[in-house]
Order: sequence, then structure tokens, then C-alpha cells
Amino acid sequence: MAELKVYADRMSQPSRAIIMFCKMNKIDFEEVKVHLATGQHRNPEYREINPMQQVPAIVHGSLKLFESHAILRYLACAFQGVPDHWYPSDLSNRALIDAILDWHHSNLRRGAAALVFDTILAPIFGRPLNPQAAEEAEKILDSSLSKIESLWLPGNAKFLLGNAQPSIADLSFVCEIMQLELLEEKHRERIFGPHKKILHWIENVKAATNPNFEEVHAMLYKTKEKIHGKMSDDAMKSGP
Amino acid sequence: MAELKVYADRMSQPSRAIIMFCKMNKIDFEEVKVHLATGQHRNPEYREINPMQQVPAIVHGSLKLFESHAILRYLACAFQGVPDHWYPSDLSNRALIDAILDWHHSNLRRGAAALVFDTILAPIFGRPLNPQAAEEAEKILDSSLSKIESLWLPGNAKFLLGNAQPSIADLSFVCEIMQLELLEEKHRERIFGPHKKILHWIENVKAATNPNFEEVHAMLYKTKEKIHGKMSDDAMKSGP
Repeated sequence: MAELKVYADRMSQPSRAIIMFCKMNKIDFEEVKVHLATGQHRNPEYREINPMQQVPAIVHGSLKLFESHAILRYLACAFQGVPDHWYPSDLSNRALIDAILDWHHSNLRRGAAALVFDTILAPIFGRPLNPQAAEEAEKILDSSLSKIESLWLPGNAKFLLGNAQPSIADLSFVCEIMQLELLEEKHRERIFGPHKKILHWIENVKAATNPNFEEVHAMLYKTKEKIHGKMSDDAMKSGP
Repeated sequence: MAELKVYADRMSQPSRAIIMFCKMNKIDFEEVKVHLATGQHRNPEYREINPMQQVPAIVHGSLKLFESHAILRYLACAFQGVPDHWYPSDLSNRALIDAILDWHHSNLRRGAAALVFDTILAPIFGRPLNPQAAEEAEKILDSSLSKIESLWLPGNAKFLLGNAQPSIADLSFVCEIMQLELLEEKHRERIFGPHKKILHWIENVKAATNPNFEEVHAMLYKTKEKIHGKMSDDAMKSGP
């Protein structure tokens, strides 16, 4: 089988989902780092791989593919030996996973990604922070977390849709939500306070996917330390 | 096979895509009207069908499904005799269609739906028009139309991705873009002026899907007449 190349930056939540999926399923792949903070995703060479200038993207034989959910669906079907629970062959179960993956774009992603960007990441990309946009994003995020809890984590559900084992939707959603690690502790407490079920579910996904989960998120934890270390330094400097 | 119920309002672009798909493929279904303008999508009975309180949704046997792309994927696989071109069984061709369907959410849909809402539909739903949001939406729409033309309608491509026959992505995209019919002619001219390839592709989809295309869009054309008839009346009244 042709070699699989995964173009990714582990600071990007959908990049982490793809890498975790490959590692969980022992899919042989080469990880090609596309450094977002230095703008490598806008290089002409990368545009040949993904004209959208985003990560992740994959190259597999003659196929060049972008959009993380399309990539997850493809990998689950194209590589032999991927257990059925990741993307079930049963049409109804598959359709329910497709539906929440589609829902993700205009809800969880729109809320979480915008909140992190407008609260903390914007300056790294040369843009000003935008508290008003962050406030709007937090509303979308809160409503999305409520929907996940009430609709797709019924009773003591271990994974999304009440499944006994994780699917590609668990990977996509958990990587998106983990991005909120970058926020200050007080913001995380406010956001997750009413959503204990989400925290419990994150632990379930961690337990089911470790050591890959922690390895793939190591760079996020490191960046968090850097950002908040720097913020404390700045606070000290401007202190009394 | 269990009866298929399609909950839809033909004023909703993804509702039209589902209805067109069923008609094109002679899938037997009952169309249940959920009248958005009178808020039927928020009724408790409909919430039992789709907790997202949006259209379209389907019920098929024990499966309740929302999100139009998930519905299109499901219908293409669950009903025998649907020609392969709608959602190819070849994994690479299927993945490319999945990718542009996923892309749609944060790009074409975000631009086109918001532009129509903030320019014309908001008052019907008791909300004020929002020219600033409309301006932002038009930028996203313009950039989305450019990407469709340059990336997925190469050369003399008849359908998206250079395919010889339409896929579920053609249906989804064309119904979204047709919603712009509701805008005033001068706005449509400004938007489509630089995008002749899009207009040509719409004609290809129409030709491949008529008489279903025109039948499913009849209500949109009627609403357009009503809105602009009313606008001319108002202009007369407030005239000199």
C-alpha cells in the first residue's frame, strides 16, 4: 500500500485527531510538520498539497485530501484492520456519527476555536484580541456543550451516542475541547463548571486512547505553560 | 422497507437538496411540511423528531436523522438502485466529495445563508436586518464562489470535482446558491458578475435534474416575487 503522509501541526485540534487515529490503529504514516505560527501553511509548496492552506491534510497514493472529518472517514475505510467502532459499517450507526460530525462545524468548532483564538492565540498570528467575538463564541460553546451532554451522553454513557467504544466523533470532539486547555484556569472553571459530564467523558476518552492521548497533546500542554508563564512574568513586571 | 418521512420546508436550501435527491432517485417518501416562518420547528412534537429544531430531518424505521449531508450520505447508501455517481463507492472519489461537503459548512453556507438572512429574511423571523453582518457574509460568499470555480470546476468541468455526472455535493451547493434568488437583482448581478463559471454550472445541474429542479424551487421563486412585489409597493408608497 502507498505510504501515507499526514501534514499536521499538533497545535491544531483536527491535526491531533488524525494523528491519534493513526496511532490508535497502528497505521504507518509519516508526520510532516506544517508550522502554523510561522505561516508554513501559506507556502506555495504546501498549497500544492492543500489549496485551502490549512492543516491537517493527507497524501495517500494519488489522493490529496483535506478536511479532518473526510480524512478520518477515509482512513477508517481504506486501511484494513481498523475496528468497526471507529466508523461503523452499519448504515444507521454510521449516519448518526456523520450527523454529529456535520453538526460540529457550525457549533462546537465555531464556539471553541473562536473563543481560544480571540482570547489567547490572536497575537501569535499578528491579530488583536477581540473580547466581543470571544463573548459570542463562549455562548455558542456553552450551548454546544449542553447539547452534547443532553443528547449524546445520555445516562452513564461512556462515549458519544451512548456507544461502548469511541468513534471518530469522540476523537474530533475531544481534540476540539482540549484546545480550551490554553485558556486561563479561571475561564476554564467558568466554562466547564456546568458541564461535569463533559469532563467525565474526556477522562473516558483519555483512558481509552492513552498513551497516545497524552503524547499527542504534549505540545499543547507545553504551549499552555509558555503562554501562562509569560502572562505571569508580564503581570510581575507591571506589578507594584 | 420502512417508510421514509422527510421533514422539510422548501424555503430551506438543505431541505430542497434532500427532496431533489429522493425525487431524482425515485425513492418513495412522505414530505412532512415544517413551516419555519410560523415556528413549527420549535414545536415539542417536532423536537421529538429533531432536537436541533431545524429542517431537514428524516425518520426511517427506528432511525431519526438530522444534518442534510448525513441524510444524503445515508439515503445514497440505504436505498437500492441509487446510481453510484451520487456518492461513489470508490473510496478516493467518495473522500473528495466528503471533503467538499465538510468544507461547505464554514464557507459557502456561512456566507450565503447569512447574507440572505441579514439582507432579506430577518424581518420574517422578527429580527432586524444587519447590513454589517451582510457585508461580512458577502466576503465569505465571494471567496467561497472563487474557490469552487478555481478548484472544483476546472477547465470545462460539467459538475463539481470535474465529474461527468452530479453528486450529492452538486445538490447541496446548488440549493445553497439558489437561495440568493431572494436577493434584489442588483445584488445578484454584483455577486455573480465575477463568477460566470458558477452560473454555467447551475445550468448544468438544472438540465441534469429537471423537471425536479424547477418543481422543488417553485416556492422559492414565488416567495421572491412576493418579497420584491412588496418592496416595490413600499417604494411606491414612500415615493414622492
